[in-house]
Amino acid sequence: MYRTHTCGELRISNLNQEVTLSGWVQRVRNLGAMTFVDLRDRYGISQLFFDENISAELKKKLDTLGREYVIQAKGTVIERASKNSKIPTGEIEIKINDITILSESQTPPFTIEDKTDGGDELRMKYRYLDIRRNPVRQGLELRHRVGQEVRKYLDGQNFMEIETPVLIKSTPEGARDFIVPSRMNPNQFYALPQSPQTFKQLLMIGGCDRYFQIVKCFRDEDLRADRQPEFTQIDCEMSFVDQDDVTNMFEGMTKHLFKVVKNIELGDFPKMTYADAMKYYGSDKPDIRFGMRFVELKEIVGGKNFVVFDSAEYVGGICAEGCSEYTRKQLDELTKFVQRPQVGAKGLVYVKCNADGTFKSSVDKFYSQDDLKTWADAMSAKPGDLLLILAGNTAKTQNALNELRLHMGKELGLRNPNEFAPMWVVDFPLLEWDEDNNRFHAMHHPFTSPNPSDMHLFDTDPGKVRARAYDLVINGVEIGGGSIRIHNTELQKTMFKHLGFSDEEAREQFGFLMDAFQYGAPPHGGVAFGFDRLVSMFAGQDSIRDFIAFPKNNHGRDVMIDAPSMVADAQLQELFLALKKPDVNN
Amino acid sequence: MYRTHTCGELRISNLNQEVTLSGWVQRVRNLGAMTFVDLRDRYGISQLFFDENISAELKKKLDTLGREYVIQAKGTVIERASKNSKIPTGEIEIKINDITILSESQTPPFTIEDKTDGGDELRMKYRYLDIRRNPVRQGLELRHRVGQEVRKYLDGQNFMEIETPVLIKSTPEGARDFIVPSRMNPNQFYALPQSPQTFKQLLMIGGCDRYFQIVKCFRDEDLRADRQPEFTQIDCEMSFVDQDDVTNMFEGMTKHLFKVVKNIELGDFPKMTYADAMKYYGSDKPDIRFGMRFVELKEIVGGKNFVVFDSAEYVGGICAEGCSEYTRKQLDELTKFVQRPQVGAKGLVYVKCNADGTFKSSVDKFYSQDDLKTWADAMSAKPGDLLLILAGNTAKTQNALNELRLHMGKELGLRNPNEFAPMWVVDFPLLEWDEDNNRFHAMHHPFTSPNPSDMHLFDTDPGKVRARAYDLVINGVEIGGGSIRIHNTELQKTMFKHLGFSDEEAREQFGFLMDAFQYGAPPHGGVAFGFDRLVSMFAGQDSIRDFIAFPKNNHGRDVMIDAPSMVADAQLQELFLALKKPDVNN
Repeated sequence: MYRTHTCGELRISNLNQEVTLSGWVQRVRNLGAMTFVDLRDRYGISQLFFDENISAELKKKLDTLGREYVIQAKGTVIERASKNSKIPTGEIEIKINDITILSESQTPPFTIEDKTDGGDELRMKYRYLDIRRNPVRQGLELRHRVGQEVRKYLDGQNFMEIETPVLIKSTPEGARDFIVPSRMNPNQFYALPQSPQTFKQLLMIGGCDRYFQIVKCFRDEDLRADRQPEFTQIDCEMSFVDQDDVTNMFEGMTKHLFKVVKNIELGDFPKMTYADAMKYYGSDKPDIRFGMRFVELKEIVGGKNFVVFDSAEYVGGICAEGCSEYTRKQLDELTKFVQRPQVGAKGLVYVKCNADGTFKSSVDKFYSQDDLKTWADAMSAKPGDLLLILAGNTAKTQNALNELRLHMGKELGLRNPNEFAPMWVVDFPLLEWDEDNNRFHAMHHPFTSPNPSDMHLFDTDPGKVRARAYDLVINGVEIGGGSIRIHNTELQKTMFKHLGFSDEEAREQFGFLMDAFQYGAPPHGGVAFGFDRLVSMFAGQDSIRDFIAFPKNNHGRDVMIDAPSMVADAQLQELFLALKKPDVNN
Repeated sequence: MYRTHTCGELRISNLNQEVTLSGWVQRVRNLGAMTFVDLRDRYGISQLFFDENISAELKKKLDTLGREYVIQAKGTVIERASKNSKIPTGEIEIKINDITILSESQTPPFTIEDKTDGGDELRMKYRYLDIRRNPVRQGLELRHRVGQEVRKYLDGQNFMEIETPVLIKSTPEGARDFIVPSRMNPNQFYALPQSPQTFKQLLMIGGCDRYFQIVKCFRDEDLRADRQPEFTQIDCEMSFVDQDDVTNMFEGMTKHLFKVVKNIELGDFPKMTYADAMKYYGSDKPDIRFGMRFVELKEIVGGKNFVVFDSAEYVGGICAEGCSEYTRKQLDELTKFVQRPQVGAKGLVYVKCNADGTFKSSVDKFYSQDDLKTWADAMSAKPGDLLLILAGNTAKTQNALNELRLHMGKELGLRNPNEFAPMWVVDFPLLEWDEDNNRFHAMHHPFTSPNPSDMHLFDTDPGKVRARAYDLVINGVEIGGGSIRIHNTELQKTMFKHLGFSDEEAREQFGFLMDAFQYGAPPHGGVAFGFDRLVSMFAGQDSIRDFIAFPKNNHGRDVMIDAPSMVADAQLQELFLALKKPDVNN
């Protein structure tokens, strides 16, 4: 037996017990006559104590110990002379009478401490060492806990966890598929699923009623920062439901998770239409931990010969409370911020609402104090506040104003990582115009049901048709999204038609689903949560990478195992594949 | 709201309630004045009652209903005139005042009944309809339940569920990998994991202490009956453990599953060495629900000029209790059975132990009554028993005798599907001689630790080295297996050397693991269970296919979605791949 207790387990109540611990050497402190070793495992750290009377043999072993050696230590639990109240085992230490060295260790390439000296690439390469560090391990523990609680909750709600296949069929719709050559079916390929969408719909048609799965999905995209080619979804579907049935169910799940994981009781989640989200926040995932809503000013700023406003499709602003004393330098920095290419505004108009009731703006040349007062009133500004105004094309300006709002929220400490503001965004447009391909594509996916009251718009203004789609947004991050699905063939055909699919294309790619609709499909809908994102949100972190045991880098590489890599010619032969030189094809 | 209750929920206590149900039309019985409709969902069946006073409009809708139509029905719960005690809702019916047809249905291609008229291929093609049938749905429910309970148990034992990557690196060792071309890394490939073996070992080196995962694995093998290219494992690993720690933990898990899933309390699992399993059962997965152990007879049957026995390396038999009255025909059939190519014996020797104490055998020419008495005594046979004896090459004959034993067990009703006899098979050989490649390969896998007391045999008789490997066998089926792993570089190098890897090959394929061993690897070991198999075993079924929502056929095809399939040229271009014609290459 390697251990009687873990390194996080012993307390003063274990006094005088003979114990055996196993773990990693965190630290050796040799104080001459006495030596202390901190022994670490997943559960904690225990202090081993070697006094001056230890045998020569034990002394010899002790002297060889280095950081990250794995040892087994036997001894007696004693009370510490100087206690450490910071760790649960801090009242005791183990007086050691023997140790066994189970594994030696080279000096690790970075320190195994909460704050390490290792850079990102090095930590990725030696991920197995990085995982020994508390913050990374705690991220994995959190992920485990959230996963277990998701399952517990959904099991309690009669959901069945059902595994859908990983080797499926490639469809050109959506992102790019990873494909897998089939040896038994030469020149044919499987694809890895971007989501189990069609399968979960088939499960509903199959009468499973309530399905979920925590499942790996795959997208061969050029990786933006913090995207992974393989990622995990909490994928769910329900039969005989309307939109409210689904949002209520998963609001319940989210509340449950906050309660058990973070001990936070959340109130009911507000619902906001997509139209309002864009109007008031310039984003379909508003961070509503703070106000600073957009106010549209176009109506009241025109006709004063300020050509920027007069020619703009949209003029809108936000009110930054208590910021009227911003310096020239601070205002210049805000202007630079909005002019960054990622934000894309041309310039920034400000109005300081001075404490004495006067106004000072960057457009004093064009506007009187009364004009500015009108603006301030429209924006419910008080003396001491600062108005920040952008103008231009509607979509771009709203987007820039969103960035500015988030920036100001951060600057003013209004985005507290320990506060959580969940909400549902609803009534998304069904279709989105695709400039590049000169056709509509599905904003959510082609199986999303239109809002029945908008059906007449299909013929006149398809872009205005609202979808029965909804996103769960927490603190400005999209945590999940879903929709009520189409469940009949005719409507699905209409949808494919508007997406520019020919009947043949629809048939070839989704024939099995269209067929299934012929045999009694129940009304159904569902949701999918980004599991990696959900866990990082719980931890108050922006990056998902530390919540994945073995993440890939931005080039889709696993630098630890060095994958992807070349394969043997024989393997390609068996698959009837030949490689082409990249430079010949590009 | 589509329903107030499910179709399995209403009882006599709901009498007079106004309810709304939704579901599938199982059956319409039109008795003239009255019509009954059985409405079905995942939870059960409720009887809808339409009396002669229904409105003309409702009558019209009712008349259009066919099998598998999806409807919503509103009405009042009333007591049935003639109750059906076979179903939980059998005391009530719902007197309907309105229905809504939610989806029509074509006549399904096979009946949605417990016993269906659909053949295998048809059921696979319309899997979503097959899933509506109780036996298939119950299989998926059982799978869900087992999965939840596995997680509950392991979570309670401090295991963390950690997801390992699906896009990994191809290694030629083991079965054939599925590979995945990388677009971002041209001419390079990922591989899909055959198991998370190396990753779970890295997690142990990473200090995770106890890991598990219910995870998809992939093998591109020519599919034998009941093998799937993608299958699911319960994959587990523990640090600071010996073999008994692992077997105790998973014996505990198995007992827990039997208790909660089948309400069966299992006693402690016997352990049997691989050597004994081969000696007494001719199989490394004995079915110990019944006795009929092999008895070796070579010592006592020689020297009587019966050349078959005299020249045989091995002579062994089993005693079939109470079968001495077998007819000529029955004995001939047994002979034919053992002579089938899959069994491979040349012939069968029998000895009838007659009720009167005399013996009748197929070798009476060579052996006296006293000789036969000696055999019967050696085999603990009683009057009325039948001895069945095979001879020949040891391995082949033991294998044939194993088949004969299982056959007899089945014939005699000794393999009761409701009885469960679990056991551990231990002390497997570490290495297995590979005739084809003239080298050893790892019987379990290359990371399995040899038994420390056999280390001296590496140089003299490597085939005799025992592994610290163990299999969990239930009713003759291998449910899981595992081993204590090697945790130091030197021993791992020795192992690779005996497996015929050059240092370079070992480095290229498993360098990251060898590197990891340099930084303090804890002793560790684990186990993997075949989840599909485990669930089918709980259901008392031989085939795993009905316990997989969307299985593939024996050619690795999903006939429902028609995968694998051709992909667009553009997709191949992007991946720098060209197809080769199969006939050119074979």
